[in-house]
This record gives sequence, C-alpha cells and structure tokens, in this order.
Amino acid sequence: MIATDYLISCDWGTSSFRLYLVRVSDGKILHLVDNGLGIKEMYTNWSKPGNPARLEYFLEYLDFRIYLLSKKAGRKLDGIPVLISGMASSSIGMLELPYSQLPFPLSGRKLEYTIIEPDATQRPPIYLWSGLCSEHDVMRGEESQIIGLSDRFASRAGVAILPGTHSKHIFLEGETIVDFHTYMTGEFFALLSSHSILKNSLPEGKVPPADPVYFAKGVRAAKELSLLTTSFHVRTNELLHQLGPEQNFHYLSGLLIGSELRELPTGVPVYLCGGGRLRVPYERALEILGIRQVEVIGADEVEGAVARAHALFWRNL
Amino acid sequence: MIATDYLISCDWGTSSFRLYLVRVSDGKILHLVDNGLGIKEMYTNWSKPGNPARLEYFLEYLDFRIYLLSKKAGRKLDGIPVLISGMASSSIGMLELPYSQLPFPLSGRKLEYTIIEPDATQRPPIYLWSGLCSEHDVMRGEESQIIGLSDRFASRAGVAILPGTHSKHIFLEGETIVDFHTYMTGEFFALLSSHSILKNSLPEGKVPPADPVYFAKGVRAAKELSLLTTSFHVRTNELLHQLGPEQNFHYLSGLLIGSELRELPTGVPVYLCGGGRLRVPYERALEILGIRQVEVIGADEVEGAVARAHALFWRNL
Repeated sequence: MIATDYLISCDWGTSSFRLYLVRVSDGKILHLVDNGLGIKEMYTNWSKPGNPARLEYFLEYLDFRIYLLSKKAGRKLDGIPVLISGMASSSIGMLELPYSQLPFPLSGRKLEYTIIEPDATQRPPIYLWSGLCSEHDVMRGEESQIIGLSDRFASRAGVAILPGTHSKHIFLEGETIVDFHTYMTGEFFALLSSHSILKNSLPEGKVPPADPVYFAKGVRAAKELSLLTTSFHVRTNELLHQLGPEQNFHYLSGLLIGSELRELPTGVPVYLCGGGRLRVPYERALEILGIRQVEVIGADEVEGAVARAHALFWRNL
Repeated sequence: MIATDYLISCDWGTSSFRLYLVRVSDGKILHLVDNGLGIKEMYTNWSKPGNPARLEYFLEYLDFRIYLLSKKAGRKLDGIPVLISGMASSSIGMLELPYSQLPFPLSGRKLEYTIIEPDATQRPPIYLWSGLCSEHDVMRGEESQIIGLSDRFASRAGVAILPGTHSKHIFLEGETIVDFHTYMTGEFFALLSSHSILKNSLPEGKVPPADPVYFAKGVRAAKELSLLTTSFHVRTNELLHQLGPEQNFHYLSGLLIGSELRELPTGVPVYLCGGGRLRVPYERALEILGIRQVEVIGADEVEGAVARAHALFWRNL
C-alpha cells in the first residue's frame, strides 16, 4: 500500500515553505516543491477580513501545494500521510502546540505532536510537530533538523550550530539535547547596518566580495570586548580613516560571528550544520578562536534533514 | 578688564547646545542659555542651498546665542573670550580639528585647539577645542567634562563612566587618561525596541515605572552570556508567558547595562558621572556585579564640568 512506502514532509518556517515527497525506507527525497509562503506571510494574509477559520485557511493552502507536488511527481498522492515541522505549530501557525521540554532525546520520542484528522475530504491524517523550549529559549523546526542529522553526531556529544538570522547552538550529551541558545547574530547585523549610527560607515546595497583579513580582525576584537563597544569601531574605523565601507562590512561580520562563537565550550566537538554563504566565515571564525574539533555537515545534508526526521519517525511509529 | 574675570563657555554636542557665562576665578556659572541647536541639526540646516560658508554660518548662529546670553545676563559681553568644546570640532561641526592623542593629561595641556580670530566684527577670539582619540575610539566633549571633574578623581586612578546613548568608560592612571571605550548601550536599546523582532514583546511609547526585580534579572543574565543570545530572552519571556512588556523593558535595560558594565576592571575606583535617569539603574547594576568602590558624581556637577574645564584652561593660559 502506497501509504507505507511514502510520506509528504513539510518544513514550514517563518519565511520559507518546503514540501517533499519522501521514501520512508531510506528517507530519500524524490520530489520537492519549495516556492510557497512562509508562516509569517500566511498569517498576515489570513488576518485580512473574510477568510475562513485559521486552521481551515492553512489546510486549504497546504492541499493546493500537495496538488502541485503531485503534478511535479506525475502521480496521485492520495492517502500518503503528511508530517509538518517548524513554525506551523506556533502562535501564528495553523494550530498552536505547546513546546516539548528538555532534556529531549534525539530519537524524537518525547516530541509533542498532534494529529489533524481529515473531515469530509480525501486528505490523509496530518502529523503536526511542535517545537522545543528550555527555561529561556525556544525553537520550532531546528529540533527536527537535529533529529534528521543525528547519525552525524558521531560521539553524540558536542554542540551543533545552525547559523542564520537567529543562529542556534544546540548542546548534545549522549542521545539527548540538553540545552540550546538562540543568537540574534544575523538580525543584529541587519539592525546595525540599516538603522544605527554605523549605517554611513558601511556599504549600501549588496554584499561586497569576501575579505578574510578584516573579517579576522573583527573576530579577534570580539574575543576581547563586548559587542556594545566593538561595534562602535565600525564608526571609528571610518572616522580615523582606517577602514573603508567594504572592509567595515567584513569587520562587523567578524565582530558578530566572533561574539556568537566565543562562548562555545572548548574541548567538545562542534558540528557546523550547513550555513550557506555563512559556512566559510563560521569555519574561519572557529579557527581564529582556536576551536579545533569542528565537523562541517554540508548544506545538502542539512536541507534534507527534516524529511529524514519525518521518515525516521514514521518508521518507528 | 572684564575679559580676565569672565568667559563664555560653550558645550556644543551632537544634539545639544549650552552656553554659559562663567567666572574664571572659581569656574562658577553665572548665566545659561541652553535651548539652541545641536551640531547635527546645525549641519543639516547649513547643508541646504544658499547658505554662507560653513564656519561663517556657525559663527553667525553663535553670535546670536551670545546676544541672547547677554540679554539674560543683562549686560554687554563684548570682549569676553569664547571657549567651545564638543562636536563643534567634528567633520559636521564649524571647523574640523584633528584629535588629541592618548595618553592625555587631565590638566588638558596636550589638548588640540585652534583660535578663530575675529575679522571685521567686535567678536573676541574663539578657542575651539578638539576631541580625543585612541587607536580604536573617539570622543568630542567628554574629555572636557573629565578635565572639569578632575578634582573629584581623588586617587587619580580608576574608571569614569558617563552613561548615555553612547556611554563612555574613561580609564585614569595618575594624572592621565590612558584609554577609553564607547559603549553603544542606549542606541542598542533603541534599535532593539523599535526595529527588531523584540518590538512586540516591549511596551509601546513611554518608559514604564521602575522595576528593580526584573532589571536585576537582566543584569544577572548579562553576566553569564552574550547580548546576542540574552536579548532573545525578551521574546521568549513573552512566548513562555514569563514576563509582560513592562517587565521586559526593565529586563532588556538590565541586559544592556549589565553587558556594558560587566567588563569593568575590578579593584579600582569607579566614578559614575551623572547619568540623569540612568543613575539609579547604573548604581544598581554595579552593585549586582559586585563592584564596590563606586563614587557617584552628581548630575549638577557633571553639567557644570565643561564650564569649569574652560575656566581652568583660561586661568592656566
């Protein structure tokens, strides 16, 4: 029966939507639709008057994307179960779920989820996954990536880093997530370069070509002092005619990534998960900070991790 | 002769303008005009087409404010020398001057300044003071405050703190400023509360009544971890229903002030200079951080410090 061999895996983030047709036995992604709306835009659209109830509105959209996936796959997908991770279970998602708690086993067996049963439609049950909270922090989606990558944490100890607008540091011990911290690194970069006094000391518009020298200078400054004072250097670099706007861009990037990474514990493995164009600067910053046990998990592998987590869950259900 | 007994002291900052009639012998302020334009607004106004040369434009405005001071004092001020500190010597000021260098004696004898001689007018010479730079940092104005407060640094060692949008930590050894750091504390607060994802977790509009409990919680969190991650707590405090917007306001304030102050060296005197409504939270944060040798220099004394510095300079000229 088709439902036992395949599943539809949905990774629905704040500003992204990815839908995969996945083979359960090995977690392989067969087809992908990824040009959908993120949760934030969905919620904004739904908030306009005249729409149906929230869950119904989100489900209609999901049905439509499943139809597109079916066209792409060239086959009917009726009866194939759907698993959803990410911001879909948040207060602005399709249905808000309470967070799973720490410590959180990498098997996912303590994961909070709910089953949205079909009504009159042909739709199969939908498994909506919740996120994870600590005493001070939250995530929705990254815990699924970590479950999908768990084979890669060889020693099952260390820190997994997911770089981004809100980078995550996820602390692993044994078979368990024991803690995690969110770093607003990317958002601070955007705030400082768009809205602060530093704006005029940075280039307008697009990202300048890499400059490892000034990036490294930033990382080293971040080792010594707080971002509250080192960030002001971006202005003084210009006032004292030391750095131009493009060099300052990389200096600020070094300050921020350095400030994020300087708190990592030493002597444990660090798993740098993907990171896209941030991978190289993160690797370089770890090196400058003297963190040697670094393993890079490639972007492709990170990209497919949620689908693998869903397949793993389905196999063990 | 009147010029030997009095001077006109001008403290011209980015967004403030203060003009004092000062008795040279004891630095006492006799009259004050303080509702003028800051340098930033002056520069913007001057940048519009049709204005005279920059220096001339600024001098005309200064002449007008001196006229107002003269009316307030009920006497002519002809022939009284004018001393100016602050951003007036910056790239957006009346005339840009190179910075004085470190180490910088508290006597001010290494201060860079220029004399603007009168042309056809009755105006006396104007002494325009420059600012101070280190390898990585700059100030224009605070060095004058420190000269004016130098009697108060009893041991002539320690750190003088001037809280604000861009707080300054000024390191004193013997009779000398040996280093200083600018902290963008107030600007970070404004950025995070107006432009970041934290905006919706903070109150709109005016400052809520003091809340020492949640402020202290923020300071303690700042001791442990980087602002890049503790600032995200403002959001999670709301998501996890731990703190309301007003409590979050003080929590964030504690995080920022705590992040600024946690780098202070221990075992040396700390001089907290004024700070207005920031005085109480700064005092409280220093206490929480276990910094015990704190002396508070009152706002009135800090307010008059530039005028006292000018009087001191004039006496020693």
